[in-house]
Amino acid sequence: MSDYRTLPPATMLSPVPAVLVSCRGVGEDARPNALAVAWTGTVCSHPPMVSISLKPERYSFELIRQSGEFVINAADAAHAKALDHCGVRSGRDGDKLKACGLEAVPMEGMACAPRLEGFPMSLGCRLRQEIPLGSHVLMLGEVTAVMIRDDLFDSDGSLHLERAGLVCYSHGVYQRASDVLGFFGWSVARPEVYQRRMEALGR
Amino acid sequence: MSDYRTLPPATMLSPVPAVLVSCRGVGEDARPNALAVAWTGTVCSHPPMVSISLKPERYSFELIRQSGEFVINAADAAHAKALDHCGVRSGRDGDKLKACGLEAVPMEGMACAPRLEGFPMSLGCRLRQEIPLGSHVLMLGEVTAVMIRDDLFDSDGSLHLERAGLVCYSHGVYQRASDVLGFFGWSVARPEVYQRRMEALGR
Repeated sequence: MSDYRTLPPATMLSPVPAVLVSCRGVGEDARPNALAVAWTGTVCSHPPMVSISLKPERYSFELIRQSGEFVINAADAAHAKALDHCGVRSGRDGDKLKACGLEAVPMEGMACAPRLEGFPMSLGCRLRQEIPLGSHVLMLGEVTAVMIRDDLFDSDGSLHLERAGLVCYSHGVYQRASDVLGFFGWSVARPEVYQRRMEALGR
Repeated sequence: MSDYRTLPPATMLSPVPAVLVSCRGVGEDARPNALAVAWTGTVCSHPPMVSISLKPERYSFELIRQSGEFVINAADAAHAKALDHCGVRSGRDGDKLKACGLEAVPMEGMACAPRLEGFPMSLGCRLRQEIPLGSHVLMLGEVTAVMIRDDLFDSDGSLHLERAGLVCYSHGVYQRASDVLGFFGWSVARPEVYQRRMEALGR
């Protein structure tokens, strides 16, 4: 048996996706904002739904409630520093997007919330439910559109999200999802299927 | 501007943690089981809470409801194949743990749910709330104890979870969280702090 240490209860689940959530309040003078969120996940397949958990005192919390919309932007290594910057600074103190060199552009299907230009993938979400849990409010959103950077598709149209080198977060450290270990079902795949699929994954 | 393709709504959020959830029903003859879950995430910091989303027809769904407990086991590369196997086979058809060479052992603070031996990290969780969302039921659990493999701590007691090479999942592909990009706050860290922290992270 391996040796283990027991720690007090904590938010240790890892690796979690390190994403920037973009939003905008309603009204003509509303400014877009982005916030780093590690407390996010998929919560349902049909309909496709995701969760983000926010402290209610965060600047973007009310923007998302007002508009009923948010966009989850998955970061690659090129955007990891901007992501971190948006995580340690508040939109109350100025235009974070500008300070990080990020550009908000229209997102398919969203009236208010923009996506962030250059990110590998953006998910447009409509707020469906809020569940207060303590320090954070769990916000459930239905995914209404997905935009993915063109270079992540093969010439045959197949999507290779694994090539994006998306950023994840483990106990205070940003890491890149890199080495491909296998595909869903590889443990029971026939040898010829295994070989064909792994080759397509560059292994 | 980069080129983008717009896709229909889907559960594309990536990379998500690829974990095995272990559980056991109540009663002396209850058998431990494990199921692969990608729809998981942290949902609150205080109290520390996580979510797992399960289809109600999954074998483990009733086991977790009966016992009110589940354990989230984060996988490393050495356990990725077992994880995949538990994702494609059902506990109804036999003892999955045995078939995958996995061993269920007692988890700190849990009366029924075991942890999986050898995994880098296990989180013991008490079921607090169920929210039906469509194909999946969102189950919210409060983390009551954390067990982490001893080799992930430095001699000074600091935890280096980033060294575990934890497994994540992106659109059907398992990847390892590897290259360290930075730490929380690195974008605004003073040069000497940046250097010291990155050295500790092996960069």
